[in-house]
Amino acid sequence: MNAEHRRLRTRVAVIGAGPAGLMLSHLLSLSGIDSVVIDLRERADIETTVRAGILEQGTVDLMTGTGVGERALSEGQCHGGIGIRSRGETRRIDLSGLTGRSVHLYPQHEVLKDLIAARLAAGGDLRFGVSGVSVHDVTTDTPSVRFTDADGTRVELSCAVVAGCDGSRGVSRSAVPESVRTDYFRAYEHGWFGILTEAPPSSDELVYTHSERGFALISSRTPSVQRMYFQCDPAEDAQAWSDDRIWTELRTRVNGNGFELREGPIIQRGVIPMRSRVLAPMGHGRLLLAGDAAHVVPPTGAKGLNLAVADAAVLCQALERFFHRGSADLLAAYGRTAADRAWRAQHFSWWMTSMLHTAADGDPFGLRRQLAEIDQVTGSRAGRTFLAEAYTGWPIPVTDPASAIADVITASASRTP
Amino acid sequence: MNAEHRRLRTRVAVIGAGPAGLMLSHLLSLSGIDSVVIDLRERADIETTVRAGILEQGTVDLMTGTGVGERALSEGQCHGGIGIRSRGETRRIDLSGLTGRSVHLYPQHEVLKDLIAARLAAGGDLRFGVSGVSVHDVTTDTPSVRFTDADGTRVELSCAVVAGCDGSRGVSRSAVPESVRTDYFRAYEHGWFGILTEAPPSSDELVYTHSERGFALISSRTPSVQRMYFQCDPAEDAQAWSDDRIWTELRTRVNGNGFELREGPIIQRGVIPMRSRVLAPMGHGRLLLAGDAAHVVPPTGAKGLNLAVADAAVLCQALERFFHRGSADLLAAYGRTAADRAWRAQHFSWWMTSMLHTAADGDPFGLRRQLAEIDQVTGSRAGRTFLAEAYTGWPIPVTDPASAIADVITASASRTP
Repeated sequence: MNAEHRRLRTRVAVIGAGPAGLMLSHLLSLSGIDSVVIDLRERADIETTVRAGILEQGTVDLMTGTGVGERALSEGQCHGGIGIRSRGETRRIDLSGLTGRSVHLYPQHEVLKDLIAARLAAGGDLRFGVSGVSVHDVTTDTPSVRFTDADGTRVELSCAVVAGCDGSRGVSRSAVPESVRTDYFRAYEHGWFGILTEAPPSSDELVYTHSERGFALISSRTPSVQRMYFQCDPAEDAQAWSDDRIWTELRTRVNGNGFELREGPIIQRGVIPMRSRVLAPMGHGRLLLAGDAAHVVPPTGAKGLNLAVADAAVLCQALERFFHRGSADLLAAYGRTAADRAWRAQHFSWWMTSMLHTAADGDPFGLRRQLAEIDQVTGSRAGRTFLAEAYTGWPIPVTDPASAIADVITASASRTP
Repeated sequence: MNAEHRRLRTRVAVIGAGPAGLMLSHLLSLSGIDSVVIDLRERADIETTVRAGILEQGTVDLMTGTGVGERALSEGQCHGGIGIRSRGETRRIDLSGLTGRSVHLYPQHEVLKDLIAARLAAGGDLRFGVSGVSVHDVTTDTPSVRFTDADGTRVELSCAVVAGCDGSRGVSRSAVPESVRTDYFRAYEHGWFGILTEAPPSSDELVYTHSERGFALISSRTPSVQRMYFQCDPAEDAQAWSDDRIWTELRTRVNGNGFELREGPIIQRGVIPMRSRVLAPMGHGRLLLAGDAAHVVPPTGAKGLNLAVADAAVLCQALERFFHRGSADLLAAYGRTAADRAWRAQHFSWWMTSMLHTAADGDPFGLRRQLAEIDQVTGSRAGRTFLAEAYTGWPIPVTDPASAIADVITASASRTP
């Protein structure tokens, strides 16, 4: 290390300023546990990149219960239901009536803005635009993270725990040695062609559409910007599609019987691959993974952001117990607890995918089976409830009743129809 | 035709003395509609071949409500639940508590015995051991069925309607011309290795077992004869397996945590392929198909026999309207009505198969997803109810409220938890 080398110390070094890392740092601060958050990206990138947009009830409750939910409530939209559309008919799943829980439409980058603002207001140490991140000594009691600060200073950040929240391509997941890890992986044959369009909303609630030409999802981001997706070949070149061709495809799959998409200029387009991944164990020694670093879900279940937040809540409780009461038991159990939810989300995402996406080869039997499944699920109160329970999200586990967030989680879990 | 040629006339010529054909003939007789039932097999074969064994609530109610359920009630067993076993733990689905409906364990060949006895007692015309069956003129108002009687007499059976109930390899389905029909088909990669063993029951209720070595089902036929299955390669040679190897395989998949199979001599063994098939339309002109002639389901959902009975009940109502009130509207709608249930059964059978059978290639992701699915379904009252609704069977539709069986069906459908 050269003359500009600098040593820092914190309790929790958080790699990644996404939903998992920022929420963890925020929750830890409520318990007086200091952390430093670093990210390769610039703050402006993080605050403007449009990603997911559906918050589970538990995510909203955790945000509002810890002081970062004000804008989500005032500027986001509560959705008490979703539509499942098939053969020109939309059948509503009454999420709130069936489960007492709703979802909230509020873009992920807005969540991140709120968390960043809260951390900075509380004097939190957030470092954007860092480079050269590496993780060290995670099997000792004194791990560290090294990186180069945005101003070029080389930093060694000593800590007690490293939280790896830097996504599926970050350094954290590769710091779990291959000799001890299992990568559960599945690539789906589908991709999602996603657009942002400047148009008014086509529907008050999300519409998940099954059609013979494939799946489509009508979603929203703001009153003037809408998010729509349609199933495509994952190798599709989004730039090769004209606006007209995109709208024709969406219309063909979705419009009919009085339902008509409201169209506008397409301001962004791209193809999203659909993959499932779970890493086991979700950490190594004093390195613990959260969010996409540990698991990736296909977008069909709207679970990625919410899993990251749930990981942060479970990990926060484990760290509170570790730092305040000197017990590492919850840290040891963290991976199993978080993986249970991750696998539930994997199943739910697979289920929604297998019910609503058509096979590339057409498969007439499979198509008819899907129609029967849609009829059964939407035609049965039990079926609708089972889907709604998963869609609105399972309760976040209270692993430490003494935790600062235990009451917030418990109140959220006790919602009833 | 030679000197021994004989002409007969009936209203409904029923090809096939299985569940669909015998139940249809029985129900028609209650409305005074005469029929003749023919089958290639000898009566003794039909009355002794062990097939399915689970009767849905609607099947039991239809039998008891029409005077053929006495032995099913006294000698069969009512099962108020099933077990889903995974990782050494059995979780019960409380069928009756969740849906107000149960299933009945009563072997298919006993159902057939009861129906044959009832038909003969009522003077019904049942002809076993016939040969050379052919179907004629189904697109006219005067179709006929020709066959050679067991005594060698050549018979021409004139009728108004032909009911094709002779299974997936019978002449009826091939009488629907290829130019108008669509065969929806799927072959599963799994087979079922089935045994009959002389042993006491291992469990009071059926146990559907998921294990890393594959699916197993612990079922029963009588207090002293048990039916067990385990997932295998469909090309497996059942005769190459020693009793010891079979029991070792079953034990490995099922035993544990205090649950132990009760073993005995294996008196029958065989490998069942798993296939799905639906024919559309379910008939042609005055030929209408019912049961396996129209659709084949894999055994996982225990639906084959029950679909046949439901077809018979729907077809009976259509024929009553046709013969008693001169309207062919329900005959025209029969195929669509029956196909709706067949597709529900296809989906349910696919669901149970995909949740409980392991992939031939191992697929670690798929295995973990299944465990998460089993946890979600069995851990949620809504999930258990959704499964129980399908397992105990959807209500048989009342298409003609004036039908002799409408009240029986309505009473069955109105059961509540």
